[in-house]
Amino acid sequence: MATEALASWASRLQWAAIPNKTQTAAVQSLYNYIGCTIYGSSHPAVKRATDALEPLFGARICSLLGTSIKTDPQHAALLNGIASHVHDYDDTHLETIIHPTGPVASAILAYAEYKRGVSGEELLTALVAGIEAECKAGLAVWPTHYDAGWHITSSTGSIGAAVGVGRLMKLEPERMAHAIGLAAAQVVGLREMFGSDCKSFHPGRAAQAGLLASLLAEKGYTSSTKALEAKRGWANVVVCGGQPQLDKYIGSLGDVWETAKNSFKPFPCGIVKHPAIDAAIQIHHRLKSSGQLVQLKSMRFECQVHPLVIELTSKPTPQDGLQAKFSVFHGVAVGLLYGKAGPGQYADEVVRDSTVIAVRDSVKAFSSDSIRSDEAIVKAIELNSDKEVAQVHVDYAVGSLEKPLDRKMLEEKFIDQVALDFGSTVAKEMSNTAWSFESQADVSIVLEQLRV
Amino acid sequence: MATEALASWASRLQWAAIPNKTQTAAVQSLYNYIGCTIYGSSHPAVKRATDALEPLFGARICSLLGTSIKTDPQHAALLNGIASHVHDYDDTHLETIIHPTGPVASAILAYAEYKRGVSGEELLTALVAGIEAECKAGLAVWPTHYDAGWHITSSTGSIGAAVGVGRLMKLEPERMAHAIGLAAAQVVGLREMFGSDCKSFHPGRAAQAGLLASLLAEKGYTSSTKALEAKRGWANVVVCGGQPQLDKYIGSLGDVWETAKNSFKPFPCGIVKHPAIDAAIQIHHRLKSSGQLVQLKSMRFECQVHPLVIELTSKPTPQDGLQAKFSVFHGVAVGLLYGKAGPGQYADEVVRDSTVIAVRDSVKAFSSDSIRSDEAIVKAIELNSDKEVAQVHVDYAVGSLEKPLDRKMLEEKFIDQVALDFGSTVAKEMSNTAWSFESQADVSIVLEQLRV
Repeated sequence: MATEALASWASRLQWAAIPNKTQTAAVQSLYNYIGCTIYGSSHPAVKRATDALEPLFGARICSLLGTSIKTDPQHAALLNGIASHVHDYDDTHLETIIHPTGPVASAILAYAEYKRGVSGEELLTALVAGIEAECKAGLAVWPTHYDAGWHITSSTGSIGAAVGVGRLMKLEPERMAHAIGLAAAQVVGLREMFGSDCKSFHPGRAAQAGLLASLLAEKGYTSSTKALEAKRGWANVVVCGGQPQLDKYIGSLGDVWETAKNSFKPFPCGIVKHPAIDAAIQIHHRLKSSGQLVQLKSMRFECQVHPLVIELTSKPTPQDGLQAKFSVFHGVAVGLLYGKAGPGQYADEVVRDSTVIAVRDSVKAFSSDSIRSDEAIVKAIELNSDKEVAQVHVDYAVGSLEKPLDRKMLEEKFIDQVALDFGSTVAKEMSNTAWSFESQADVSIVLEQLRV
Repeated sequence: MATEALASWASRLQWAAIPNKTQTAAVQSLYNYIGCTIYGSSHPAVKRATDALEPLFGARICSLLGTSIKTDPQHAALLNGIASHVHDYDDTHLETIIHPTGPVASAILAYAEYKRGVSGEELLTALVAGIEAECKAGLAVWPTHYDAGWHITSSTGSIGAAVGVGRLMKLEPERMAHAIGLAAAQVVGLREMFGSDCKSFHPGRAAQAGLLASLLAEKGYTSSTKALEAKRGWANVVVCGGQPQLDKYIGSLGDVWETAKNSFKPFPCGIVKHPAIDAAIQIHHRLKSSGQLVQLKSMRFECQVHPLVIELTSKPTPQDGLQAKFSVFHGVAVGLLYGKAGPGQYADEVVRDSTVIAVRDSVKAFSSDSIRSDEAIVKAIELNSDKEVAQVHVDYAVGSLEKPLDRKMLEEKFIDQVALDFGSTVAKEMSNTAWSFESQADVSIVLEQLRV
């Protein structure tokens, strides 16, 4: 039932039938994906994977975003998928902690550039179909599936990618069901691999798996049309002792839109630190407007945070950008100093800068059980007088569903990422291009403009 | 521990250190794989997959066995892997019911032809390394893993394929461990897909997944080096509530050789029917030598079989070759008539032949709790006199570990399969070629001879 219901719903989905809020979320999700993927494209792990596979590339017709390289659709899906996730800066469906756009967008962009003539609306419709598929599947097996050790982004991602590509292909429901089954048979991603290159391989491989599934199903290759719900099908096998709730969530397709619940990280680090960083940035702006910013070195800073912040991010003296991601002190310090905590503020040279180190050393963090995980209080106190200069209480951190990134913030995030490798002029051009998908008649032309 | 132990053992394995019995089993496994894959190459499912993917092929340097087509290594691994399993006629490691050669051989042959200069001994060493890896991993999670719904051939197959290719690459242990981790993160194959094209997709995709894992690891792409044994690593996640026994089985590497326990099916149908078919063939030969074979139509036949035979294969009037696989009556009838029950005897026209139908209708099967699953009794009884003409009691069916196929039987199986599409002259030439791997200096030259 669930497999056929999903197939039938996805194959009939039309852009005009998607609510405005979900349409906007889809446009933003694609935009955010492109910024993350261009930024990720110069990461050493992506370079390693590209070097390993370049001798095996097929026809060079699909773009690796942010590079001059073209490759075949399957390698484009894989390598763009890796790049999208490699900085852990992509989007999050908070109820399942799925990073939903990477697997789907990597597959559908590759297929669209291969096929040509796919419009922006068709592409975005396929993106919504794919994100809905993976998030509904994820919700159906959450949380036991994730607790057991599956990387839920990729273990659901192949299904989302197949549905997205299948929608672009205009698969009729039966072949779409076979595509879902072929994708469901490829379960990618274990949490044990977190901390290694393999973590970002997961969404890339999921994208590739879903693309392959739909390519096969399009030509009549079959699977089970009860692949998700059968006794020995996907949900029961991967739920690892839980009770899958496929009917509940697949049944809500078209009523509850998961795409509209997608969230975007403002800072390239674990989400637990975000409230404190948000507060630090607000203090920066207050001190700036009162002319006190120059006195930062004569202040100390106290942060009240959720206990998880201390547990996960209390590295006091990070030595490089990667370690700094696990330091709430660094995040708060750059927020105070620069009013920003983007990828530029996690560069190794910034982490080792003497001014940054001085401010970082003046930041203390205290665990408080009365503080929620998306909440923080940061105080600036003058050292000599021990007088409070400023206090900011962040009730919901920027980037949460209650306080989502607006278009301007998303744009700042995009440009900050892309400018690191390409400068701000190119970054702004690419940002304009990345906003323009919805109105395009053939997205393969847009993709040409996201290369260098 | 287990991941590094496996990596270390596999990267050091040498042909000369492998016991004779295991060497012989490896040569036979590869030989049997080649016959099955050539036979499978003309199956409609393989054609569908090839048609779907041909536009995406990279450099055409690797052979699809039994065809004139060349493709890139990754598609060769996939498509040969599908062909090897599509008739369900491949090998079986009986303790885990893994079909071990398909995923490993499909990956290492593709890599060997791509790389060139790989000797037969190197190839066979890699095959043994890969088969040991997948069977030890499979034993460690058996039976709960299979009971939960994983297709164990492919869910372990990507690990075996990565180890095999890694051995050909001469990966040092650390990179081999990363290759194992990258493969372990790609868990392919659900039992729900049995009965569809997706079943044979599983070992093909496992071959491709393992090849990809080693290609990435070779260039320094990382995974966890505790991928198999970690709390959220492969074994604990896929064992589905069981207790994995990695140390026990990985610890037995080099002492207990799983490759030596590989078995080969003499008949292209479910193994439960094999004892009855074996008995029918023996009756054929008795009646032939006593000159009574011409009187077959004046006899009836009674089979005493294990209850599972009745449960799974009691289709009385099959209409085509596929249905005939689920008919013990057909298997016994062709055994009686032809003294054979190979793929030729499952051709649609044979299933619909009036003589075959007449004999098939004279076969009755009775379930007996005192008959083991590898045992059967078949009696020939003259219709007029109701007198028993012949009786054969098969204690262990041909193809079981107690009564393995010998070289001559394997050769007959190979030639019967290949001759169906290519005639017996070509089949015999290919058989000679397929026996010759061990002595070759560059197996890519041999592979040229297994094309048409």
